[in-house]
Amino acid sequence: MIAATPPMGWNSWDCYGAAVTEETVRANADYVAKHLKPYGWVYIVVDIEWFQPTASSHQYEPFSDLAMDAFGRLIPAVNRFPSSAKGKGFRPLADYVHSLGLKFGIHIMRGLPRMAAHKRLPVLDSEYTCAQAADPSSICLWNPDMYGLLADQPAARAYYDSIFRLYAEWGVDFVKCDDIAREYPHCRREIEIISEACRACGREMVLSLSPGPAPLEQAEHLKQYANMWRITDDFWDDWKLLLAMFERAEKWCIHTGPGHWPDADMLPVGALRQCYADKGWTRFTESEQRTMMTLWCIMRSPLMIGGDLPQNDAFTLSLLTNKDVLAMETESFCAHPLRRSGEEAVWAAPRQDGTGLYLAAFNLSGKKRRIDLSGEGLSFCSARELWSDRTVKNLSVTLPAHDAAVFLLSK
Amino acid sequence: MIAATPPMGWNSWDCYGAAVTEETVRANADYVAKHLKPYGWVYIVVDIEWFQPTASSHQYEPFSDLAMDAFGRLIPAVNRFPSSAKGKGFRPLADYVHSLGLKFGIHIMRGLPRMAAHKRLPVLDSEYTCAQAADPSSICLWNPDMYGLLADQPAARAYYDSIFRLYAEWGVDFVKCDDIAREYPHCRREIEIISEACRACGREMVLSLSPGPAPLEQAEHLKQYANMWRITDDFWDDWKLLLAMFERAEKWCIHTGPGHWPDADMLPVGALRQCYADKGWTRFTESEQRTMMTLWCIMRSPLMIGGDLPQNDAFTLSLLTNKDVLAMETESFCAHPLRRSGEEAVWAAPRQDGTGLYLAAFNLSGKKRRIDLSGEGLSFCSARELWSDRTVKNLSVTLPAHDAAVFLLSK
Amino acid sequence: MIAATPPMGWNSWDCYGAAVTEETVRANADYVAKHLKPYGWVYIVVDIEWFQPTASSHQYEPFSDLAMDAFGRLIPAVNRFPSSAKGKGFRPLADYVHSLGLKFGIHIMRGLPRMAAHKRLPVLDSEYTCAQAADPSSICLWNPDMYGLLADQPAARAYYDSIFRLYAEWGVDFVKCDDIAREYPHCRREIEIISEACRACGREMVLSLSPGPAPLEQAEHLKQYANMWRITDDFWDDWKLLLAMFERAEKWCIHTGPGHWPDADMLPVGALRQCYADKGWTRFTESEQRTMMTLWCIMRSPLMIGGDLPQNDAFTLSLLTNKDVLAMETESFCAHPLRRSGEEAVWAAPRQDGTGLYLAAFNLSGKKRRIDLSGEGLSFCSARELWSDRTVKNLSVTLPAHDAAVFLLSK
Amino acid sequence: MIAATPPMGWNSWDCYGAAVTEETVRANADYVAKHLKPYGWVYIVVDIEWFQPTASSHQYEPFSDLAMDAFGRLIPAVNRFPSSAKGKGFRPLADYVHSLGLKFGIHIMRGLPRMAAHKRLPVLDSEYTCAQAADPSSICLWNPDMYGLLADQPAARAYYDSIFRLYAEWGVDFVKCDDIAREYPHCRREIEIISEACRACGREMVLSLSPGPAPLEQAEHLKQYANMWRITDDFWDDWKLLLAMFERAEKWCIHTGPGHWPDADMLPVGALRQCYADKGWTRFTESEQRTMMTLWCIMRSPLMIGGDLPQNDAFTLSLLTNKDVLAMETESFCAHPLRRSGEEAVWAAPRQDGTGLYLAAFNLSGKKRRIDLSGEGLSFCSARELWSDRTVKNLSVTLPAHDAAVFLLSK
Repeated sequence: MIAATPPMGWNSWDCYGAAVTEETVRANADYVAKHLKPYGWVYIVVDIEWFQPTASSHQYEPFSDLAMDAFGRLIPAVNRFPSSAKGKGFRPLADYVHSLGLKFGIHIMRGLPRMAAHKRLPVLDSEYTCAQAADPSSICLWNPDMYGLLADQPAARAYYDSIFRLYAEWGVDFVKCDDIAREYPHCRREIEIISEACRACGREMVLSLSPGPAPLEQAEHLKQYANMWRITDDFWDDWKLLLAMFERAEKWCIHTGPGHWPDADMLPVGALRQCYADKGWTRFTESEQRTMMTLWCIMRSPLMIGGDLPQNDAFTLSLLTNKDVLAMETESFCAHPLRRSGEEAVWAAPRQDGTGLYLAAFNLSGKKRRIDLSGEGLSFCSARELWSDRTVKNLSVTLPAHDAAVFLLSK
Repeated sequence: MIAATPPMGWNSWDCYGAAVTEETVRANADYVAKHLKPYGWVYIVVDIEWFQPTASSHQYEPFSDLAMDAFGRLIPAVNRFPSSAKGKGFRPLADYVHSLGLKFGIHIMRGLPRMAAHKRLPVLDSEYTCAQAADPSSICLWNPDMYGLLADQPAARAYYDSIFRLYAEWGVDFVKCDDIAREYPHCRREIEIISEACRACGREMVLSLSPGPAPLEQAEHLKQYANMWRITDDFWDDWKLLLAMFERAEKWCIHTGPGHWPDADMLPVGALRQCYADKGWTRFTESEQRTMMTLWCIMRSPLMIGGDLPQNDAFTLSLLTNKDVLAMETESFCAHPLRRSGEEAVWAAPRQDGTGLYLAAFNLSGKKRRIDLSGEGLSFCSARELWSDRTVKNLSVTLPAHDAAVFLLSK
Repeated sequence: MIAATPPMGWNSWDCYGAAVTEETVRANADYVAKHLKPYGWVYIVVDIEWFQPTASSHQYEPFSDLAMDAFGRLIPAVNRFPSSAKGKGFRPLADYVHSLGLKFGIHIMRGLPRMAAHKRLPVLDSEYTCAQAADPSSICLWNPDMYGLLADQPAARAYYDSIFRLYAEWGVDFVKCDDIAREYPHCRREIEIISEACRACGREMVLSLSPGPAPLEQAEHLKQYANMWRITDDFWDDWKLLLAMFERAEKWCIHTGPGHWPDADMLPVGALRQCYADKGWTRFTESEQRTMMTLWCIMRSPLMIGGDLPQNDAFTLSLLTNKDVLAMETESFCAHPLRRSGEEAVWAAPRQDGTGLYLAAFNLSGKKRRIDLSGEGLSFCSARELWSDRTVKNLSVTLPAHDAAVFLLSK
Repeated sequence: MIAATPPMGWNSWDCYGAAVTEETVRANADYVAKHLKPYGWVYIVVDIEWFQPTASSHQYEPFSDLAMDAFGRLIPAVNRFPSSAKGKGFRPLADYVHSLGLKFGIHIMRGLPRMAAHKRLPVLDSEYTCAQAADPSSICLWNPDMYGLLADQPAARAYYDSIFRLYAEWGVDFVKCDDIAREYPHCRREIEIISEACRACGREMVLSLSPGPAPLEQAEHLKQYANMWRITDDFWDDWKLLLAMFERAEKWCIHTGPGHWPDADMLPVGALRQCYADKGWTRFTESEQRTMMTLWCIMRSPLMIGGDLPQNDAFTLSLLTNKDVLAMETESFCAHPLRRSGEEAVWAAPRQDGTGLYLAAFNLSGKKRRIDLSGEGLSFCSARELWSDRTVKNLSVTLPAHDAAVFLLSK
């Protein structure tokens, strides 16, 4: 089964935005292979605008000349991805990532390039043109590149088949499809044909849908057609956004399971926003980063690191390599929020093997706070706190502002 | 802890409506004591209009003369509850129920009787009158008896204190308060003072709020102030209502835990609607009753039997006395819906002791259907289906229309 | 035709609230007869709570003992209306008002007194009881006196017939029915039976509906069943409310005509709020009062003076006795707003006899402002400003903050 | 003042859709000059897609090659408008129309051609490109040609200036701007810069905004920036649409006046839909056409004939040449709906010169019906019905289903 546990890896968006280059991707892949692979991190994902030669920040440039082939399929901008020259596309880069024992992913926008429609380019291996597949009134509100497709037209499915076959040739393992997860109901059918093209392309690929919030009432549709989907708009290093994730996590936790994972978005840790004059570092405190990791792991969100990894400091690396915390992603199930107030939240998740229960406590307040978990009615023989790796006698813990603790209670 | 597991018992509404009598209550209590008590059923609840002398069906009579004391407190109508004569109230009936090893409950409406306000009766042990406690613009839309209270006035708290002290004197163990659970936000404060009066009355009582649907976004408030609350409008023996419960159960399951239980309403099984010319029997098929019991148990809803128990047939009794199915109410936790389509639903719930996992399959379609649970990625050593009490080799089951199966997977 | 032009008169609410007495009514009737009758003012209306013995301000007292007869019909509280003693009701006071050449009006609430229902009083000349006519779940949200009626029950029509026949015996010429004009759709049918009872009672009465805002989409229903109806919530001496009336006037002006008049509510001029410690005077400036009178007259709203007339000063009297301005109420038609911005508004209304056009200019800004009406494309031989009674050469006028001018353009 | 009375003329849409040709325009202009000009009809308007070489019906073709100049300004497709060859644009056709004593109008879409942005064409007489003026996320939902403009960018105003100067060179007298009148609030600013460019271009042009329904609450903005604007979606020869116009007319009538006219859309009379296999004729009955003309004239809507005029029959010509009915457009003002039910409607409008009143009666029912106007309280010396040109003694009229009568009452 594909995505039997939540996918874990690195994504270029938080650190390089639309301006990611091959050099950056290789450096991060090297880092993952060397430092993170043993902990379950495997996907290396090139995010948006790899086909745009002049992208230089998190901004999109309207009416730019996108790199594409004669069939209206976007290809890497050679100036930014030199190994893609001579029509090789992402194949060389994917080969390199695979050589490290990792998996390779790319970002796409739903639809086809606007110019491919205006030029009426042919759709590969079909009788159709891009003009027949495109819907001139279906556009993305925040990105100027594409027209959405007329999902009920054979031309549309033919176009999606043509790009997924190309991605299969390149060796892509993960596709993050954008401008779609929150575009219900008008994109419902387009999600289906993208999913069908993905599954028919001859290579196993994780299908990830963005941006959120995906509508909760579409949970069963999403579970059927995608492997992961965003549950909020873009997540960044801002406590308000992290706090708001608790409510979303509560609503979506019942839809988590093998092959289908509600996605709380990338982890903005370490070196972020590298394309700006004032190169950035996460604004999250260490406490907040523990809260984020604890929540993402106990709710079993996919984990995609947003920071530029070679710049990691010791704390960031330690955050990403706590085996016991990360074990929740693979060993737990049926996670439940037990309660939440303005000051604190508590979640529980049994281990699948029946040997114990994870119990997480979150201090949502802006002050140091003692949180007492003894009233939850849970019996156990021994308990260990996983961030500190300490055995504890009771389930009362004092936490700094915005910090978290997570216990493994054993029978 | 009060209501440490979901309360289980019998309630008079489905079989006798507003016309319940002492004789009926005693007969059902006798039955519970004799046949059901060993399985966890203990509460005997007298539902609405016990204070109305002329009630004869499920209808309410406007402007009727309600039995009340000199302090505006409703008391049992003596013609219907003879043991309450001479001001004894429900004390003799509660004593009888207790003598059987059971617990006694009553239904109340929020507020005070309209005539108690118009007559400006005094509130016991206070300086206030009922006219000072009542809000003439706060009424129930479906029942003509009461005015809601001005929750911010000391007179209101004094009135609620006066009735809960009376219930404590009577020996009441369970109060089902009506016209309130879905009346957010205007009744939010009234819920709080009812809960406070209940907890301060000197006797432990389960506080149950009706009718639903209680608003999901008030879950934390409900968990704080009540022991159980209705998640839908009145539930009856109609497949459409049962089908609709799946969605509500999915939304509320994360708010289930010791002391606080989302309530899927009474079980309309056996002999119902006994006050009508054509005395009734449940219109649910046996399959549908298994589906209902399986869902209520795996989601850990309180269980209140709605039928007139002495008329039970063998099937109904067997439905209510399956120890292994009922064990989900006390032994499971963290129940999750795994998936739901128009045709089938699947739920899972681990045992708290780590020894196994309950896995329920529901055929929501109108046809016989094979449901395959082997794709859920669950590993186990042995599996037993609990309705048939058979060990099974695999997790594939063929179910009649609207039927359910539930497996206990052991390590 | 009843109400062939907009009704004009005096109403007790703004000056005495729920506490109006016979003495006040007589004093104001005397004043109207002496000073205002020649200008078209004729109705003397006793507003709410004349049946409540202890009313002393603008507040309502819940659960008070209302004066009523043996058939649940409210009668004047004798302590406040001494001439009503010995069952004479409002007949003596109406006789007095008629003797002055004026007309007499009263306020009623839709429905019947709550206690009349609880006591199950008979409905006069019928086989019904008040309990059969009343709907225990139909109440007024701001007044505690009444239950609304079950408009589809014959008992309801019988009750309304019984009160309108009583009003006919008393000599009532005008009924202001409250808690109804904005209560669509649930009171739609109740409006109809009130209107039918009014028209069938044997005496011609203006039927006025309150409070607003009546829903615009019910205009044709209102035109059919009522003679006037409120277009906003209560209007008081506050510039914000006066400013907001312009938008409502624009929307309702097309529904103005003989027999049916959108009502902008009482004129809060002169001595107001007389039941309070700090007896009040209108907070409107003289400019604002001119603006109000100009708008009410050009839109042809009914005019009901809210102040205690014997306390009038010279300005107030002059405001109410400008024959040329008041002529708009009787001589104009087809009024149109020409334009409105945040700073100014302009209205026009032709004279019915074709001899001229009224043109009103309003300075809505908080500063002195020159308003030029020459760009409206209107041709005329001569023009006179009616507040100043001056002939003008051109249609440009400088107005103080919140003031108005109105011109009569002649051919 | 431009558009001092409501514009009247002919428009190509109803008969030729997107496929109008120069030949058709000339033929219709000839007809207007010969038969209709004396009655006030003067505008000859070329509707949508005159720049699209392959248009052949009422459909739009996505991704077609639009005729445009080097500055991204659309120009007539030479194959359809031969006189526009050699860069002459609409100048020769406009000259011809002017030579007949008529005025010339064109349709435009807000924004600029998508390809002009993708090609980054320069904006004439500016430092900007079309790519800088265009907003890639602002598109029309029903037409694929254009991008809306970034109204706050100087490039946008520069582009609109460049096209209006071109239209001034061509001799355009009337511009119907589409995809804008109902696009509040996001197009509010774009309306303003279009209006400003129009007024600054050096030639007087009527500015007409489509499609409707324009939002009623934007009436003052529309009055300030446009000369006419649509109050409904496209109007066609369908009784349901005609019936629905009464409600819109009632709401908008107060916003009618010199320079600003709520527009009830083209008159679908005579030969319509000429580009289809089954060439069409209006489906309106003669009665319905009289109702339409009567309503449009008394509400003072602009009048644009939609039929192919050379094919007119005698009835159609008579409908368009009733001087007395058309006089309402120029001689009346302050029109008011007096009442409307499911069966009938009545409107009144005084003559500006004070000599009389127009009174229109509409039979909205599907049956012959007698309508009595004597209860409206109108006094008069003589009355003439204008469609039949007969003097009448009383105001009672019997009308066929869906027919109308209009009286001129004289003093």
